Amino acid sequence: MSTSLNTETAGAASGAKEADQVDVYDTTLRDGAQQEGMNLSVADKIAIAPLLDGLGVTYIEGGWPGAIPKDTEFFARAHKEMEFTHAELAAFGSTRKPLGSAHLDPQVRALVDSEAPVITLVAKSDIRHVERALRTDGQENLNMIADTVRYLIDAGRRVIVDTEHFFDGYRFDSDYALAAVTAALEAGADVVALCDTNGGMLPDDVFEIVSAVRARSDGKLGIHAHNDSGCAVANSLAAIEAGARHVQGTVNGYGERTGNADLLTVVANLQLKRGQELLPDAGLAELTSVAHQISEITNIAPFARQPYIGASAFAHKAGLHASAIRVDPDLYQHIDPREVGNDMRMLVSDMAGRASIELKGRELGFDLAGKSELLGRVTTRVKDAEANGYTYDAADASFELLLLEELEGRRRSFFRVESWRAIVEHTSHAGEINSEATVKLHAGDQRRVSTGEGNGPVNALDHALRVALSGVYPVIEGFELIDYKVRLLDSSHGTDAITRVLIEMTDGQRSWSTVGVGPNILEASWEALVDGFVFGLVKHEVTPR
Amino acid sequence: MSTSLNTETAGAASGAKEADQVDVYDTTLRDGAQQEGMNLSVADKIAIAPLLDGLGVTYIEGGWPGAIPKDTEFFARAHKEMEFTHAELAAFGSTRKPLGSAHLDPQVRALVDSEAPVITLVAKSDIRHVERALRTDGQENLNMIADTVRYLIDAGRRVIVDTEHFFDGYRFDSDYALAAVTAALEAGADVVALCDTNGGMLPDDVFEIVSAVRARSDGKLGIHAHNDSGCAVANSLAAIEAGARHVQGTVNGYGERTGNADLLTVVANLQLKRGQELLPDAGLAELTSVAHQISEITNIAPFARQPYIGASAFAHKAGLHASAIRVDPDLYQHIDPREVGNDMRMLVSDMAGRASIELKGRELGFDLAGKSELLGRVTTRVKDAEANGYTYDAADASFELLLLEELEGRRRSFFRVESWRAIVEHTSHAGEINSEATVKLHAGDQRRVSTGEGNGPVNALDHALRVALSGVYPVIEGFELIDYKVRLLDSSHGTDAITRVLIEMTDGQRSWSTVGVGPNILEASWEALVDGFVFGLVKHEVTPR
Repeated sequence: MSTSLNTETAGAASGAKEADQVDVYDTTLRDGAQQEGMNLSVADKIAIAPLLDGLGVTYIEGGWPGAIPKDTEFFARAHKEMEFTHAELAAFGSTRKPLGSAHLDPQVRALVDSEAPVITLVAKSDIRHVERALRTDGQENLNMIADTVRYLIDAGRRVIVDTEHFFDGYRFDSDYALAAVTAALEAGADVVALCDTNGGMLPDDVFEIVSAVRARSDGKLGIHAHNDSGCAVANSLAAIEAGARHVQGTVNGYGERTGNADLLTVVANLQLKRGQELLPDAGLAELTSVAHQISEITNIAPFARQPYIGASAFAHKAGLHASAIRVDPDLYQHIDPREVGNDMRMLVSDMAGRASIELKGRELGFDLAGKSELLGRVTTRVKDAEANGYTYDAADASFELLLLEELEGRRRSFFRVESWRAIVEHTSHAGEINSEATVKLHAGDQRRVSTGEGNGPVNALDHALRVALSGVYPVIEGFELIDYKVRLLDSSHGTDAITRVLIEMTDGQRSWSTVGVGPNILEASWEALVDGFVFGLVKHEVTPR
Repeated sequence: MSTSLNTETAGAASGAKEADQVDVYDTTLRDGAQQEGMNLSVADKIAIAPLLDGLGVTYIEGGWPGAIPKDTEFFARAHKEMEFTHAELAAFGSTRKPLGSAHLDPQVRALVDSEAPVITLVAKSDIRHVERALRTDGQENLNMIADTVRYLIDAGRRVIVDTEHFFDGYRFDSDYALAAVTAALEAGADVVALCDTNGGMLPDDVFEIVSAVRARSDGKLGIHAHNDSGCAVANSLAAIEAGARHVQGTVNGYGERTGNADLLTVVANLQLKRGQELLPDAGLAELTSVAHQISEITNIAPFARQPYIGASAFAHKAGLHASAIRVDPDLYQHIDPREVGNDMRMLVSDMAGRASIELKGRELGFDLAGKSELLGRVTTRVKDAEANGYTYDAADASFELLLLEELEGRRRSFFRVESWRAIVEHTSHAGEINSEATVKLHAGDQRRVSTGEGNGPVNALDHALRVALSGVYPVIEGFELIDYKVRLLDSSHGTDAITRVLIEMTDGQRSWSTVGVGPNILEASWEALVDGFVFGLVKHEVTPR
């Protein structure tokens, strides 16, 4: 506001702001990956981390190097392949073994070897767990905490300590739980995150206990909540109200059992309802897109009712108040959905659609700026397609083909399909199910008929199509189908549910994804397969024959 | 404890208990049905209501008679077909129109005509909504509330008033919002439920505002929360902490946008963590089963991470602590999952399994008590099947066939399948997809071969099987396939996801459900179809030929 502020005042103001700033600690890649059914590859993690950095989180916990080989590899590759704008990478590990020494403990050394600038140590703070699970005594556990923290600081790292089972431990023996916190802080930990590991606390429990810890400690406290009582978000807010300044959680609330605190909901609540600035505004506007991109990578169906970012979060059923909502949307929604990159479903903004199409085009190397009529056509097609179940977030190749078609006025045609057929057959004497497919198509001046077998009808269709095409376009022999995902959309009554298929192909150098949708899994798969082969031919600059 | 208590003391104690008792108000059938993608038929509602009554909820809100024809029919049928043990049926409706009179308002009269003993009226309490949506003035809205409540009480009903947009309204004009509450209470409403209609409140907002209302009113207050800030459960708890004694919500948190407060989570938190008795203990132990049965009726995939009742809620990934968890489960879970009818996944209790199989057998008319060896075999088969994706909650007929097979030592065999085949074919000149199936089977001394067509391969298989069988077993001509549901389980990477099919058939008198599972949708559908026809033949006491 004024340039006459003296340096001292400015410094003090910035110091105050910093002290009040809440760290956003994302543990999607580590604790989130504990979710039943989730299995993240190193490539998945390498794909997710930059999305988190783009949001502007403070820390990205990448995994447990040393304990999990995939995580060791992730950290090795992370240093070579990634540079973050906002976030720091944290490696998770445990305090040293009882009666050992930190510098000789291979698990602790692996944390140093990971080269992560921040190490998050899990430490016991519930005396019952110390005695029964760790099988050591209370003092030795405190020594383990202090030694390990000091060793890592000496190795040039900053240390965060997660005190496991803190709340249950505090209720059982508050002095011991506090001693663990104190041991970590006195040894030099930047933050002690209090963990509701079993997830059973209610918000007033959390407020009371964090306040009590706060009263007896000056150090920076954090909160790590699980959702077993359906209160992980509220528990995180209660801890921050009680003075915590560091919040841990996961995108989409992934995690073991009922999941971790949904970090994006916590952030949106604090930022939009309490005026605390946790992410840059640009990051906040990416919440919806990033959450959905991550759910495509994890292949865990997004939860439509998820606060802020869910597909239904701002969807109003047309009813008595439809016209009132259109005129006065603020009376019917708790925030403006655009602040988190979502949309009120009744008021899809055509301009917003065009802007994102333009952006997506730019990503793919097409300058669409000013091409208003083209953008309008593409936006309409994308919206119509998405209304029918297509998604282009995870099917860039299908989107690029659609864009090319609108740019060039017609679809690039490498072949013309006359017919395809899939047969699934079971004979009781053979006792097995056979799947076979036949494809008839025209490419160049040839009519090609081929039959493929497979472990299912889609596999058989892929084989048949590949054989039919590769005689004319030999480059196709190098294409490989590497991933195949099916999702039933809108699992409504009857046989009218829509099936969406996502396919990933590679030529060994690059990979590309396509989408198909239909009432029939075979129809949807066929569409995605054809797009996949066509896109590969386009990228190899093959001349249609 | 003592029989010498005098009547007055006992009365006072019971009165105190009653005053402190929190009503459990279920609105799954009305507000829950607002969820995107949910479409409950009258039969669905008739199936759900007794499940809610079995839990022991205080009120079941059935719908809006008069406004929604299906709901009018539901109330008409409810009085004839249902008798509740615990719950009272509530009809939802609105206050009379502005400048009208309650007894002439057809919408209000329809509430009386529904014969529901309890009427829940939605009323405006945010002056902005009164003026902009209702287009009337503040005083007239208060008159509308008072008139309508009095009219309904004169008609012999008890009245609950839901004050829509209460929290937003209170923030904008607290005097007006309070005036609406007072108008309802003074006119004789039993309860005024304060609604966070837009769902944006955080728990401290709710606590503060409910406390303020409480300070200015003696009447019974309730809370109706939505989950837009991810805090619906915590907001409900905060209201009760501030003195509300009536909580509204839905099973599985169904509802518009992000859904309503998950009623079962709220109840479990209060009952298990705060010692408030909301449901009978037997009801609490049914939470998991009822929530899953309802999700089969709504055909909305259950959310595995749902607190208390989710499939993952007590599932521990085997890891470092596996043995510690087995020895000392209480250290690793926030409650004993059996209290809500769920199970720790690593410690599936064989005995618990047997008990529930015995119970299920009894339901179906088989006395299995003491048949320990048989129970063991059935339990093992059910567990193996469930691990492979089967579910018997919604497929009683498949379970009964399994039980019969174990009881009789072999499966009742009405026919022997030689082969089946489904063909899906697309020809570009016809432009459409044809589905055709051929079934070859032996029944009695006949070999039958028949072919059916359909709008998809499953439909074609059903037709072919039906034609092949009905020549030998004419009763099959009266069987009809009335529902078909598909769910992809474990939508993991690649083509290895498992498909589960549930089929419902009827013979016009009764209906039955079967399940099939397989890597291939056709294989799963075939299994369910065959079970469906076989079960129908068993029930019609047809002699196998």
